[in-house]
Amino acid sequence: MSIGIYFGRVVKQLREEHRYSQEALADRASLNRTYLGEVERGVAVPSLATIAKIASALNISASELIALSERQQQLHITPQEKSLQAAVV
Amino acid sequence: MSIGIYFGRVVKQLREEHRYSQEALADRASLNRTYLGEVERGVAVPSLATIAKIASALNISASELIALSERQQQLHITPQEKSLQAAVV
Repeated sequence: MSIGIYFGRVVKQLREEHRYSQEALADRASLNRTYLGEVERGVAVPSLATIAKIASALNISASELIALSERQQQLHITPQEKSLQAAVV
Repeated sequence: MSIGIYFGRVVKQLREEHRYSQEALADRASLNRTYLGEVERGVAVPSLATIAKIASALNISASELIALSERQQQLHITPQEKSLQAAVV
């Protein structure tokens, strides 16, 4: 699955840890609540500018937010994908 | 200045370190060369999907690419912005 799916999940998880509603986080990040919901579901793929806004609203850096998403993606990789990855490296 | 400007500069710098032409990097990343040029100049703001493609084509992770951009941004922050940042923290 694409990184966008994991990014959305991480945003949702961090938002809930901060006990922000979607509306509260959207406000903090100057984003539309509907759009934030789409990002969380991996339906909308955020731009770098949006990533930076969301990260700032969650008090982390954009690179940390992406790193968390990459870690989630690595955790969910299938054995087939792993061996393919190993073959490529 | 926005993170997109620094992202573009970092992409250009890494591309040149790899001795890739814009065309070669665009090919590796499955992007249009004109679009890659716009990203490098900070004119186009890349999506997370595009960031992942460019990072992969440069053999680094998306989070490392963003971290390099953030470092560049921090280096270019003005004294006024620095004191404002300190005041906010």
